[in-house]
Order: sequence, then C-alpha cells, then structure tokens
Amino acid sequence: MSIKERKTYNARRITSKSLVATGYGVRGTRYVYLDHAAATPLDPRVAKAMSPYLDKVYANPSSLHSAGQAANKAVMLARKSIAALINGHTDEIVFTSGGTESDNLAIIGTLSALVPSLGVREGKGELPHVVTTAIEHHAVLEPLLHLHKIGAIELTVVAPQKDGVVRTEDVMMAVNEKTVLVSVMYANNEVGTIQPVGDIGRAILKWRKENNSAYPYLHSDACQAAGYLDLNVEKLHVDLLTLNSGKIYGPKGTGLLFVRRGTKLAPVMRGGGQERGLRSGTENVPGIVGLAKALELAQSIREKESKRLTLLRDRLVDGLLRIPKSRLNGHAEKRLPNNVNISFLDIEGEAAMLYLDAKGIACSTGSACASTSLDPSHVILALGMSYEAAHGSLRFSLGHATTKADIDRVIKVMPSIIEMLRRISPITLDMTHFN
Amino acid sequence: MSIKERKTYNARRITSKSLVATGYGVRGTRYVYLDHAAATPLDPRVAKAMSPYLDKVYANPSSLHSAGQAANKAVMLARKSIAALINGHTDEIVFTSGGTESDNLAIIGTLSALVPSLGVREGKGELPHVVTTAIEHHAVLEPLLHLHKIGAIELTVVAPQKDGVVRTEDVMMAVNEKTVLVSVMYANNEVGTIQPVGDIGRAILKWRKENNSAYPYLHSDACQAAGYLDLNVEKLHVDLLTLNSGKIYGPKGTGLLFVRRGTKLAPVMRGGGQERGLRSGTENVPGIVGLAKALELAQSIREKESKRLTLLRDRLVDGLLRIPKSRLNGHAEKRLPNNVNISFLDIEGEAAMLYLDAKGIACSTGSACASTSLDPSHVILALGMSYEAAHGSLRFSLGHATTKADIDRVIKVMPSIIEMLRRISPITLDMTHFN
Repeated sequence: MSIKERKTYNARRITSKSLVATGYGVRGTRYVYLDHAAATPLDPRVAKAMSPYLDKVYANPSSLHSAGQAANKAVMLARKSIAALINGHTDEIVFTSGGTESDNLAIIGTLSALVPSLGVREGKGELPHVVTTAIEHHAVLEPLLHLHKIGAIELTVVAPQKDGVVRTEDVMMAVNEKTVLVSVMYANNEVGTIQPVGDIGRAILKWRKENNSAYPYLHSDACQAAGYLDLNVEKLHVDLLTLNSGKIYGPKGTGLLFVRRGTKLAPVMRGGGQERGLRSGTENVPGIVGLAKALELAQSIREKESKRLTLLRDRLVDGLLRIPKSRLNGHAEKRLPNNVNISFLDIEGEAAMLYLDAKGIACSTGSACASTSLDPSHVILALGMSYEAAHGSLRFSLGHATTKADIDRVIKVMPSIIEMLRRISPITLDMTHFN
Repeated sequence: MSIKERKTYNARRITSKSLVATGYGVRGTRYVYLDHAAATPLDPRVAKAMSPYLDKVYANPSSLHSAGQAANKAVMLARKSIAALINGHTDEIVFTSGGTESDNLAIIGTLSALVPSLGVREGKGELPHVVTTAIEHHAVLEPLLHLHKIGAIELTVVAPQKDGVVRTEDVMMAVNEKTVLVSVMYANNEVGTIQPVGDIGRAILKWRKENNSAYPYLHSDACQAAGYLDLNVEKLHVDLLTLNSGKIYGPKGTGLLFVRRGTKLAPVMRGGGQERGLRSGTENVPGIVGLAKALELAQSIREKESKRLTLLRDRLVDGLLRIPKSRLNGHAEKRLPNNVNISFLDIEGEAAMLYLDAKGIACSTGSACASTSLDPSHVILALGMSYEAAHGSLRFSLGHATTKADIDRVIKVMPSIIEMLRRISPITLDMTHFN
C-alpha cells in the first residue's frame, strides 16, 4: 500500500465510499488497524496482477482451446514463481482454498493415503500415530482431535515451553515407530513465537535414516510466517508446508500445500482431477495469480519490513509493559516482527478490545477464528497461565500500514482503559497467575 | 456484460491489454467463446459489488472489532440475499470454495454424520446405501466411487434414458431402507439435460413418509442450472443443493451448499468453526459478496436470457444437424437454453475443437474437468452411444456475450472442418453407432 493510499484509509473514507461499511472507527481520525494476523487488505499490486484473469483471460485452465490454455499458462507461471520462492518444484505445489484446507489436506491426506478407509483398522491393529503441539492453529488441532476421537489415530500433543517455544527434543521424544506425521507450525498466530522447524526437520531426517523409515512426515503451517521468515523448504526440511494468501495482502480464499516429491498423499476433495488428482475443482485462476504475486511481494520485502516492524513492535511492547501487572506472552526475540501479545491481570481482554475499538483501534483477544468463543485462548493456556489470567490477553498484529504514530496512540490510550476496567473488575489476581 | 464491452472482447484486445494472454483467436476478428459451461467472465457489476471488500472492508468477519463486524455484516447480507433467492433460510447456507467442495461436503458430510468414522463399520453391519446417476459431474461420482471402493457404502448408479433424462421411477426403484442419500444433478453439464428433481423430491418425501424415515436425503448439483432454472428449494424438495459462482459470471473459487434445517451433516474441513462448524476457514468475504451478486443477477435475468439463448441454441442445433451423420445429444426440449451438444460420426471431437479454435471459436469436447483425459465422456457413453461414436461429440455452451453472428459463424465454418476430418478419418461408422 502506498503512502498516499495509507493516508486515505480512515473511518470517514470507509463510511462514504464503501457500500455497506458501518462507519467503524472514530470520525475524522485514522483507523488504526492492528489485526493483520487475522486479515490483510489486498495489495493494489496484487489486485493489478489478478485483474486480467477476471474478465479477459477467464476460461477454464482445463479447457484445451487457446483461451483455456492462456488461463492454464497463468496457473503454470504462478506455480513456477512460487516453486522458486520456496525452493521447491512446480509439481510439489497443490493449490487450495486457503490455510484451513491445506492443513486438513496435509493431515487427512497423509493419513488416508496410508489407511485408505481411515478408521477401518480400528481394533484391527496398531493405529497410525501423529505428533503435534498444544499451540497449533485450530485447522491442525481440530482434524487431529476428530480423528483421535473416532479412534482412527493415536495422538501426542507436545507442550511448548513457557516462552511459547516447542523444543525439538520434546517433539522427538514423542516420535516412535508408529508415528507417520509430525505437525509443528512455523510461527504461532496468537503469540508470534517462531518454532525451530528446521531443527525438527533435521532431527526427523536423522530419525528416519536411523530407523530406515519413510516416516514420519513433517508438516508445518507457515501462514503467519510467510511475510517475515525464510520459506526455503530445503532449509526447513518439511515434507508438507501450508501457505495462504489472505494473511499476506493477497486475495482471500486461496492457499497452497507444498507436498514434497515422494510424499504419499490422498485427496480429500475428489472430482475433475485437477492439481494432479490431489485437489479437484476448477482452478481459481485470479486467486492463484494473486497468491503468487502476494507471496513474491511478501518475500521480497520481508527483511526490510521485518526490521521496520521489529522496532515498532518493541516500542509497543515497552510502552504497554509500563502498565502494572502486565506481561508479554511468547518469546521476546524468537517472535514474528509484527506480533505483540500482552496479558493484563484483572481485566477481560474482550472488554479492552471493545474500548480500543471505540477509540478507533482494532486489535484482537486471540485468533479471529476462535474469537466468538468464551473460552480463553488454548495457546495462552498452554504457556502455563491460569485460566483467570488468560482472559486478559490482547494481540496487536502490525502490518504494512502501521506507523509509529499508530503505536504511540495505542501506548497513549491503553493505560486509562486498563485502569478503568480494573476499577470495575470483581477479581484481583496476583502475579503468580502469570506462571 | 454491456454491448460495448462485448464488442471490445476480441483477440487483439486480449493480446495487447493482458499480461500473459497468448494471443488466442484470429487477429482482427471477434473471439467466439462458446464454452460458458466451463467458465464465465466476471460480470462488471459483480466486480463492483466485490470491490469494497478487497482493500477497504477487508477485516476477518470473525473479528469482534467494528472492522470485523462490517465484514461480518457483508457476509450476513449475502447470506440473506441468497436465502431469499432460493426460498431457504440464512442458517441453511454454507459457503464453500466452489461446486466440487459443495458436492464433496454433501456426500461425505451426510455419510460421516451417520457413520462418524466412515468405513469403520465395514463388515460389522449393513453399509449405508447411496443412489446416484451415471451422468453426474465427477465431483459427485468420484467421492461416491471412492467410498464404494473402500467398502464404506453401497452404491447404485441409475442410467438415464437415451435422451439423457433420468426417470423418477428408476431412481425410486433403487431406493431401499438402507438408502441415506440420493444425488441427482439439476441440469447436466455436458448435454444440458434438465432432470425432474422436483418430481424425485416429491417421490422421496412420499417414500420417507410411508416408511416413517428421515432418509434418504436428496442432493442436487445445480451449478449449470443456476443461470436458467428456478432454484426454489421448496419446489425442488431438495435437502442439499450445490451452487457455485464461477459458472454464473461470479468470482471463481466460491460456492455454497444449501443444507435444509434438520439435515444431519458433519464437516469435512475442520478448524476455526466458521459456517456454524460445517466449513472452517476464514470466510472469503469478497467471494461471498460476489457469489450473492452473481446469483441475484443470474436469477433476475434468467427468463429473458433463457428465451434469447433458446432461439440461438436451436438455430445452432438446426444449422449443425444439416451436416450428415450428426445427432443432438440429450433431450431437445428438456435442455438448458445455452447447451448444444452434437456428435459427428467419423471424427475426433478434439481435432474438430482445435480446428475451430484456430478459427477463433472456443468450444469443448465434454466437461473441461475431464478434457485432458483420452477417454470419451462418461455422459455421452451413458446415453447409449458406441465408444467410437462418443469420441466425436462437441459441446457449445452459449452465454451473455453470444450473438446471432457468433452462431452463424459456427454454422458456416463447421461443415468444411467436419468434411476435412472425415476425409482423413481411418474409420467409417454407420448410424447404428448412435444408438
């Protein structure tokens, strides 16, 4: 987003220009959007790249006439570009409808490739075993918990350290000869903690070699990492990698699963046999082109943008930690440059979020997906915090449009909101709740 | 698409204006796109409706701040609009990534709601039974054939009549007390034949009442029908209805499944619990808004457009049937207004398609999904044609941009292409191959 466009992005403009916007924010002041981990606007450069595929090169890429082949070429070029960015091959990219589908495909796909009628072996022999962590996204945890519940898999959920980091040795401790899949996210969506995926990958390679086994596969959800971290699949040693577009200024409803050559994967969605039979459905050509462009832009500016945002992030952390009875959740350095997650004792995060919203500042209490649930975040709880204290956490996720002035505004308004909420709070917790 | 825009849509414009178009069509002449059943361009009015949700109202609809709630409101309004169009309720709409996902969700979702670990009951009791037809889209047939192959279901595939119509009595003959799902498409994607879904629905309701059973459910894929037929779910008596956006001038990568209240359905994709837990994944807000707008436009003009296209369709049929050894596939009247599917003996449909393409006319040999396969269409074979003859079929699918001049151009160029192909053909079949 250019500087000019950034300036025009305020509440008034939204009210007058868009069709249904409800006039959020404070009239006349800039709307400070600090929820980029939940959703990002479409980058105009991505929109421009997608544009020809909306109403000009619109044919079905599976059609053999030249209009179809032009669309097919666009998909091929996108695939090529992404393969180069992640140091993979074009036949290792499976386009999907987003991160959730990619995660589900990675899990259900590998397991049902092994056990065609997943669950049939119940009681008939040893179940396949999966290792994951307690702080994964719901799109990983939910399919695994379901498969476990119906008796189709054995499941080990590894706890992170209190700083949010999952230790390689803890993951490897859980791996045994029945383990077919290990799923560890690259960077956490709530507390931004970066996991040692490359280390885990190396350890798994070593384990496979020593045990002369093709398993376990390593899957990693890199949706939050894509804008800031290296996605080189050879350095990460992943067999399966989830990426999406809606968190990196690309179109919503598009994602991909990297599937390393030789990895056994069965489709979840069956039909016309697109994506080499691994994901049927007419290709979303503009979405795929947009995903490729967004990923290219994200990776090209990631170092520069990481430096810029790290400064803003740390400024916000420092400012907010000046408020008494607060703590930073997740590792201070092994952390996405755009993530600030702070807990305040004796407040409801949701109330604070709504008061901030009334002041024209958008943040969240956890992942957007789970925000309608009344339970505290499973991630914050996994860091060892008490149930009561876990209710008081706020996530600020920075992005392209975030400025120093935005950060300073949050730092300025936050103390009075927390103070006011604490005055009306029925409980008073001590700092031991942060353990 | 307006008249003005229609005129500018020719090969030259594509070549010069788009980024990667390969200059298909014949330079200086209008490109005659007759493959609307495979893909349609984005209607500019749909693009306009989607526009605010790309870079202005871009937040995650699950976010509780006002930016998120503005996005949520857009999704709610889209849901409301669609519910009204199909005479359903807002809580009966599940947004998906397209027709293939909706079909898979309808099938796997209903079956796994009954049998949580689908396939586990293998050998332990009676398998659930599903009834479908031989001319369904691959997105229905493939998941069913897979479930049958792994021993999770019993499957009955009902053959259509030679005119492509599936008889209600044939479907009901297949239904028994183990039948949990009947899936019959509303209109066929290859030959355009319209099925008596409402009749089948009434017969199923009667069967359920007589047998005091909640089953079987009726599912129908209405992707090809949406632009031309009545989608009133109360008249169709369907429990599950698949719709998508990419075939009705809406965005690609968006669709929905209508799920009648009370219908037991388990999710296929698990995660953040969006769409009341039936389809997780961040909502594709612009896609959903675009789907709603496209469906609204399609339904508002369907009667007028049906009349217009029926005339053009019949003109094309008449013109092409003047070529010797040809026949119309599918019912002549119970047929989508935009579908022409003709078989010519002694030619390869694919060769004819490529010659037409060289003359700037896009058509197809069957569904785009299966076009890279060398096998003849399963639909054409199901109409009773010989394997050899089935190779010589061509589908022309008309659309908003189609003019009388387009039709006349096809009628003009076709005889010489067929004649030329027959001269080089190694085989000479007689008309009995059409039976």
